[in-house]
Amino acid sequence: DFAKLDYHRALRVGYPEVIFTEGKDIEHLKHILLDMIKREITAIATRMSKDTYEKIKHISDKMIYNELARILVINPKENEKVGKVAVVTGGTADIPVAEEAAVTLETFGNNVVRVYDVGVAGIHRLFLNLDKIKNANCIVAVAGMEGALPSVIAGLVDVPVIAVPTSIGYGANFKGLSALLTMLNSCAAGISVVNIDNGFGAGYIASLINKGFSGNGVIK
Amino acid sequence: DFAKLDYHRALRVGYPEVIFTEGKDIEHLKHILLDMIKREITAIATRMSKDTYEKIKHISDKMIYNELARILVINPKENEKVGKVAVVTGGTADIPVAEEAAVTLETFGNNVVRVYDVGVAGIHRLFLNLDKIKNANCIVAVAGMEGALPSVIAGLVDVPVIAVPTSIGYGANFKGLSALLTMLNSCAAGISVVNIDNGFGAGYIASLINKGFSGNGVIK
Amino acid sequence: DFAKLDYHRALRVGYPEVIFTEGKDIEHLKHILLDMIKREITAIATRMSKDTYEKIKHISDKMIYNELARILVINPKENEKVGKVAVVTGGTADIPVAEEAAVTLETFGNNVVRVYDVGVAGIHRLFLNLDKIKNANCIVAVAGMEGALPSVIAGLVDVPVIAVPTSIGYGANFKGLSALLTMLNSCAAGISVVNIDNGFGAGYIASLINKGFSGNGVIK
Amino acid sequence: DFAKLDYHRALRVGYPEVIFTEGKDIEHLKHILLDMIKREITAIATRMSKDTYEKIKHISDKMIYNELARILVINPKENEKVGKVAVVTGGTADIPVAEEAAVTLETFGNNVVRVYDVGVAGIHRLFLNLDKIKNANCIVAVAGMEGALPSVIAGLVDVPVIAVPTSIGYGANFKGLSALLTMLNSCAAGISVVNIDNGFGAGYIASLINKGFSGNGVIK
Amino acid sequence: DFAKLDYHRALRVGYPEVIFTEGKDIEHLKHILLDMIKREITAIATRMSKDTYEKIKHISDKMIYNELARILVINPKENEKVGKVAVVTGGTADIPVAEEAAVTLETFGNNVVRVYDVGVAGIHRLFLNLDKIKNANCIVAVAGMEGALPSVIAGLVDVPVIAVPTSIGYGANFKGLSALLTMLNSCAAGISVVNIDNGFGAGYIASLINKGFSGNGVIK
Amino acid sequence: DFAKLDYHRALRVGYPEVIFTEGKDIEHLKHILLDMIKREITAIATRMSKDTYEKIKHISDKMIYNELARILVINPKENEKVGKVAVVTGGTADIPVAEEAAVTLETFGNNVVRVYDVGVAGIHRLFLNLDKIKNANCIVAVAGMEGALPSVIAGLVDVPVIAVPTSIGYGANFKGLSALLTMLNSCAAGISVVNIDNGFGAGYIASLINKGFSGNGVIK
Amino acid sequence: DFAKLDYHRALRVGYPEVIFTEGKDIEHLKHILLDMIKREITAIATRMSKDTYEKIKHISDKMIYNELARILVINPKENEKVGKVAVVTGGTADIPVAEEAAVTLETFGNNVVRVYDVGVAGIHRLFLNLDKIKNANCIVAVAGMEGALPSVIAGLVDVPVIAVPTSIGYGANFKGLSALLTMLNSCAAGISVVNIDNGFGAGYIASLINKGFSGNGVIK
Amino acid sequence: DFAKLDYHRALRVGYPEVIFTEGKDIEHLKHILLDMIKREITAIATRMSKDTYEKIKHISDKMIYNELARILVINPKENEKVGKVAVVTGGTADIPVAEEAAVTLETFGNNVVRVYDVGVAGIHRLFLNLDKIKNANCIVAVAGMEGALPSVIAGLVDVPVIAVPTSIGYGANFKGLSALLTMLNSCAAGISVVNIDNGFGAGYIASLINKGFSGNGVIK
Ligand SMILES: Nc1ncnc2c1ncn2[C@@H]1O[C@H](COP(=O)(O)O)[C@@H](O)[C@H]1O
Ligand SMILES: Nc1ncnc2c1ncn2[C@@H]1O[C@H](COP(=O)(O)O)[C@@H](O)[C@H]1O
Ligand SMILES: Nc1ncnc2c1ncn2[C@@H]1O[C@H](COP(=O)(O)O)[C@@H](O)[C@H]1O
Ligand SMILES: Nc1ncnc2c1ncn2[C@@H]1O[C@H](COP(=O)(O)O)[C@@H](O)[C@H]1O
Ligand SMILES: [Mg+2]
Ligand SMILES: [Mg+2]
Ligand SMILES: [Mg+2]
Ligand SMILES: [Mg+2]
Ligand SMILES: [Mg+2]
Ligand SMILES: [Mg+2]
Ligand SMILES: [Mg+2]
Ligand SMILES: [Mg+2]
Repeated sequence: DFAKLDYHRALRVGYPEVIFTEGKDIEHLKHILLDMIKREITAIATRMSKDTYEKIKHISDKMIYNELARILVINPKENEKVGKVAVVTGGTADIPVAEEAAVTLETFGNNVVRVYDVGVAGIHRLFLNLDKIKNANCIVAVAGMEGALPSVIAGLVDVPVIAVPTSIGYGANFKGLSALLTMLNSCAAGISVVNIDNGFGAGYIASLINKGFSGNGVIK
Repeated sequence: DFAKLDYHRALRVGYPEVIFTEGKDIEHLKHILLDMIKREITAIATRMSKDTYEKIKHISDKMIYNELARILVINPKENEKVGKVAVVTGGTADIPVAEEAAVTLETFGNNVVRVYDVGVAGIHRLFLNLDKIKNANCIVAVAGMEGALPSVIAGLVDVPVIAVPTSIGYGANFKGLSALLTMLNSCAAGISVVNIDNGFGAGYIASLINKGFSGNGVIK
Repeated sequence: DFAKLDYHRALRVGYPEVIFTEGKDIEHLKHILLDMIKREITAIATRMSKDTYEKIKHISDKMIYNELARILVINPKENEKVGKVAVVTGGTADIPVAEEAAVTLETFGNNVVRVYDVGVAGIHRLFLNLDKIKNANCIVAVAGMEGALPSVIAGLVDVPVIAVPTSIGYGANFKGLSALLTMLNSCAAGISVVNIDNGFGAGYIASLINKGFSGNGVIK
Repeated sequence: DFAKLDYHRALRVGYPEVIFTEGKDIEHLKHILLDMIKREITAIATRMSKDTYEKIKHISDKMIYNELARILVINPKENEKVGKVAVVTGGTADIPVAEEAAVTLETFGNNVVRVYDVGVAGIHRLFLNLDKIKNANCIVAVAGMEGALPSVIAGLVDVPVIAVPTSIGYGANFKGLSALLTMLNSCAAGISVVNIDNGFGAGYIASLINKGFSGNGVIK
Repeated sequence: DFAKLDYHRALRVGYPEVIFTEGKDIEHLKHILLDMIKREITAIATRMSKDTYEKIKHISDKMIYNELARILVINPKENEKVGKVAVVTGGTADIPVAEEAAVTLETFGNNVVRVYDVGVAGIHRLFLNLDKIKNANCIVAVAGMEGALPSVIAGLVDVPVIAVPTSIGYGANFKGLSALLTMLNSCAAGISVVNIDNGFGAGYIASLINKGFSGNGVIK
Repeated sequence: DFAKLDYHRALRVGYPEVIFTEGKDIEHLKHILLDMIKREITAIATRMSKDTYEKIKHISDKMIYNELARILVINPKENEKVGKVAVVTGGTADIPVAEEAAVTLETFGNNVVRVYDVGVAGIHRLFLNLDKIKNANCIVAVAGMEGALPSVIAGLVDVPVIAVPTSIGYGANFKGLSALLTMLNSCAAGISVVNIDNGFGAGYIASLINKGFSGNGVIK
Repeated sequence: DFAKLDYHRALRVGYPEVIFTEGKDIEHLKHILLDMIKREITAIATRMSKDTYEKIKHISDKMIYNELARILVINPKENEKVGKVAVVTGGTADIPVAEEAAVTLETFGNNVVRVYDVGVAGIHRLFLNLDKIKNANCIVAVAGMEGALPSVIAGLVDVPVIAVPTSIGYGANFKGLSALLTMLNSCAAGISVVNIDNGFGAGYIASLINKGFSGNGVIK
Repeated sequence: DFAKLDYHRALRVGYPEVIFTEGKDIEHLKHILLDMIKREITAIATRMSKDTYEKIKHISDKMIYNELARILVINPKENEKVGKVAVVTGGTADIPVAEEAAVTLETFGNNVVRVYDVGVAGIHRLFLNLDKIKNANCIVAVAGMEGALPSVIAGLVDVPVIAVPTSIGYGANFKGLSALLTMLNSCAAGISVVNIDNGFGAGYIASLINKGFSGNGVIK
């Protein structure tokens, strides 16, 4: 009774509730997962460490765990994918956050193209991959350290860019603050920003946008 | 020659360059405005104070100044408006930032519905206006102080919410930091955030989204 | 002799001293606990980890440990409970802090009603539970991430709201700073705030308020 | 139509809406004030500078302005005062914030006792005035610089202490941050905190508490 | 006697002392300037506002003031210029800081090429000017807002890049903090950073580097 | 009655109360000053701007104002000076803060030697003046920007160094934070620190130390 | 050869160099300790964890380790103690930092009186111990959480107070920042501050002061 | 395919790409290293912990690991060294960061002179070693705690100083922030700064400078 799952959410906002794993008691977590599995709701749990997964994996076989993305999909089901979202990273160390976005997007029924390790220190790598990126309804741009990638991309494309700062870096990076401020202050227009390392949040809003563009949103 | 205007931008990203007024020398500013006027480009200059406007208004009659929104439109032209974006505020003091978003949206050819002063301290006001808000392809949610409005809205709608923190408040508000952090940490999904007081940035990306939803973006 | 326990406190402020466990040497801690047990003072020690409890539990059987709340009650005794305080959380991960408040309240003789997981991302859950909340002399509102719950509640009730930010979240949450600033800047009146994760502090002041309202405080 | 006044608030939470003056357009402000005056609602507008008052004072004679407290009372009416709240300051420079609390309390029908300039640098001054302070249902403790006053008071009394940090000080005071952190981290129990310089917020919650203690709240 | 001018500096470090104007009493400033003029030392005073200049300009005619760069040159003399340093900016509002660097460089005997307004939001502008930039012994890269320009440049050239964050921007820019952190965290190698708005400091170290490269430093 | 002057202080701590001028209402200030003048207490008021002085100077002729130090001495009287304190600055812009310390010291009966403009950028200037500095019972070291002077001094002397960070500087100086952190983190022993720009506080504690060393303190 | 021990320091500043243990390689550390032991210098190493001590304890028997204070004394020798310094704490969790100060003081030849757990939440405990405190040439006041103890003490005594903030606390304590800011902003005069948890630094400067007061410093 | 190695970099900027080890998946890392080894590129991987090295060391024998510097050199080859760079530290705990710079410099073909443990607390140690330092084309100055060393050095030499703040220290050091701000605010000219603990970045730019000075850069 401690958890009030929001079963109307799928009706109201078009997607089921998403479970935030961190900080939850294992018994609470099992209880919530089993309840959703029983109701046959397809949903995801985010920020689930390998450790936590090991502790809950026995409760059901209707769950698929993606270690890199740290996402658990409950009652996974095949879906048809629409439109296209490009998920782009500055470096290879940003890939786990990018995968959190990509897996969220795919679970919610979007085509994803991954373009990784094209950061501004070797800007020609971005240009070599520009076609893939431009050819999307929305771009999720993931970068740590100075986080300049979304600014450069937004100056080159005509679709919304969702920027995700990562905590990759050290020292005056202050656990992602540096990249976060960079992205919020971008001199390029067409960018909006989610929390540090919040691949899920970026994937979620990118899904709303891509589906709208693809005629799968609620067109008015 | 000091300024390198980006005349290909309209071709490349679908909109002309936008002039950031603050910090520019008046002579530089006049030079840039006249050059654009001469080339018959429809564009906007943002964050223009009344004071600055008074100093440049004599250079041409092809400019319209909106004092509340602090925006100057150059070579204004009639446009047909598509889709719908809701611009919502928590309080009445957030209206100038909201108008910056709304004027940007209208100049770029989007229908706008304004729903002001429906903040979380009197949550029933939001519910009374929910139909107007839900009936939009994208929502720009503007709030200062604790900035909780976008979280509540995003839990009620199925379209992207662009959150704009304002610097309204005092003390531990730290000039908008409080609202900014609130919005970045929202437990509701479907939100992304722009810089403090950045009505223009929110309007710009909302325009990209609304046009895409309305079939006026580059559908792939 | 290193510790100067404040035995007059119960006379002076109506409650015995509370022991802050963190950072104390185990031998010092045992010494303080035994001294209080010997004097038959009913008191609590807060922020006691499971680990620390394991190290001290053998010293006496006049102690009850609550793991979720991380509270040790010394010389527990039955008490009659008065009035009513509602302890409310935004998510399920906020429950340990809420339990610290609730156990403090119950030990000090207050009736408590728990309403957990009714955060602003699914605001209807709050409305469904509003009767329980309104029907209280004081509300302890516990929330992490953006911490918007107290603002919404304070706009709906006519009793004091004690807001407790938690460190639940990540990235630009900065270990609870986000929720703390939200609560300090609330645009709703009737809220005051305690330290991040300070369930004990919230429970203590809520007890003072509830007892005063119930005619069990020192009425003047 | 831009402002959605919350006329049910008095019914719902027991007090009328309070107007936050800062950042509002003068025309908007006049509009809101006149509307409330016409409806014969007794209310207050806070953080109104002398300057702003000069610009609006001609619109009606049903307004009383308190310059030190920066509060405007609309449709002032005589009220019977109940209970007692002590408003205490550390220094003389904290008096304006204290008066904001005191005027709020008096307008809402509470007896107030003022005890100013009794900060911890000369702690005997507090002891000389302790009777006045103890003899209250709630204490509003206002302090700048290091803000230690509420901690000392809370160790001496058995009623709730509402702590108000002020921005008085300089250098590493960081505009009140120093006093704010002090109060949030108080090792004395029974304290909760409002925003820097938020005399109104402290007065409001103290009023809720005092009325509850005095049997004028909604006793359950 | 209050000021201890460092007349050996020119011998010791190769350049005369530089006067920091801000915060100095006008009488102190005049005293220092006249002393240097009398000794026929060629030197500069930095961060001198137009206002201050108006107050001291009558003391001698051996001074040239550059308003945009806010620099006063004392005992200006013709010098032969060596090598080449490129001074590059992201936007037009960064020009005053860039000019502080450029004027410092020219006064100290370096050739300067200015390439302004080539920021990352329109990256093709940088590529169009790359020849001018590459053709230099050292690059001073000046940028505000997100400050990404130095990262992109450093990935394209084989000479040292001195990065100068400016305070241009607003909101989460925090007066240049955003650009400063970006530059310190650059994932491109070959960059080092000076203080926010410190055009002088960048010009000074760029001069040391350019002269060394040009065989005019102390080669070992 | 609003101000509770601490007339026992001179007896208790050896010095009269010191008036902090900033933020005080002019009428309150006059009242306090006149009260002290009437009681023939020799005292000082600190941080008094020229402006404020102009508004109060007519109330009595028993006051001397020092504009550079921003100190007002009330009932000034001749005193014999003991021992010696060196007040040292890094630059000439730090002189006002240094004078606040020096005037405090002299008013309280200490000999002062001033050694200004000997900062670490030209370290030989410090060595040239070392005899004057070493020949003191206590050193007040005042520095802005990076604030490294106290560290260097403390490595050269065998007496206590009181370090005063100033707000001189710009950009990442953050109004004195830079110098403050430097001084708190000094790798040299024998340093303690007062608030940014707090010349008064440094002078006060240096006076306590010098008098103790000189046999004029309360020797035990 | 990597370490340049400062053997003249004892001559120059009156005390031998002090070794900062943290971050040093074990082999480097052994090398430095052995060198000092061989030269028969009495010295201390600070911030040595139990772990590190276990790794080096075999190298010599001329070392005494104090675990609570985390100090290693090398070539300990009997000394006559002069004067008196009071070391005072707010809580029992502050004792380790206080012991670092006390052991430093004793090793350097000062009498120490310890007065622990007399924080402002139970201010009468301070008054009961005031005689011991007043009867000292210098007071080291150690406190965590809100750190208000030094302010209260400095208002009661006529000797210098060296304030030491500790990192005891949680949440908005920010690892001691709260107590640090409190102490820097004290409205009581006669306080100066050292780094968070820097018991050694406080002990060192208190030793300089106490010896000067006791006629054992270099009297001028 | 996830990693886009920048093989043209050596041609474009004169050095091969540098691998940032932290945060990379072990399989990704092995893949990247093997690819570079196969192509016979001499390169380095930075910030590689002993742990990580143990996991990858079996993949090839064409790698040399330096534990203190945490650098892995791939396809190491003999090179002729030119010019001279001095790497200087304040303390012995700064040596690991200094070694990161020194090893980077040596791998890239520069002569290095190491001068360690000459911090400002014993400034004579710096003077004793000044000849070695002055006799260099560029100085890398590494310091933690207050980080004052670069300021002192820059006042004594006529070559560029690259300042590296380290995270050595505790409390108000805030993991290197203190030293970083010190260096950015240096009152000495000729300094530029890299990220906290970024020995690699300092070594890289120092190499560019030294080679240019030595006639091995691209002289124009
Ligand atoms: N990775 C994530 N980052 C931010 N918010 C999330 C994340 N995963 C889930 N959430 C949100 O957290 C809320 C669930 O919290 P809880 O009730 O504690 O499970 C939902 O509103 C989700 O939208
Ligand atoms: N969880 C807590 N948060 C804040 N303060 C506390 C907490 N628990 C106990 N305290 C306070 O800490 C003080 C006891 O500290 P100590 O003497 O170190 O045990 C008492 O004044 C308590 O009111
Ligand atoms: N410049 C100053 N900096 C810090 N504290 C001060 C200063 N001047 C006076 N004070 C302190 O402020 C208190 C007086 O405050 P008030 O009662 O508001 O005048 C006294 O305790 C003084 O020691
Ligand atoms: N220690 C370091 N500090 C800062 N940047 C580095 C460091 N080591 C490598 N880099 C940069 O990080 C980038 C490589 O990132 P990645 O592609 O993720 O390996 C290159 O541009 C390097 O210049
Ligand atoms: Mg890469
Ligand atoms: Mg409103
Ligand atoms: Mg939930
Ligand atoms: Mg006073
Ligand atoms: Mg431009
Ligand atoms: Mg000077
Ligand atoms: Mg205690
Ligand atoms: Mg050393």
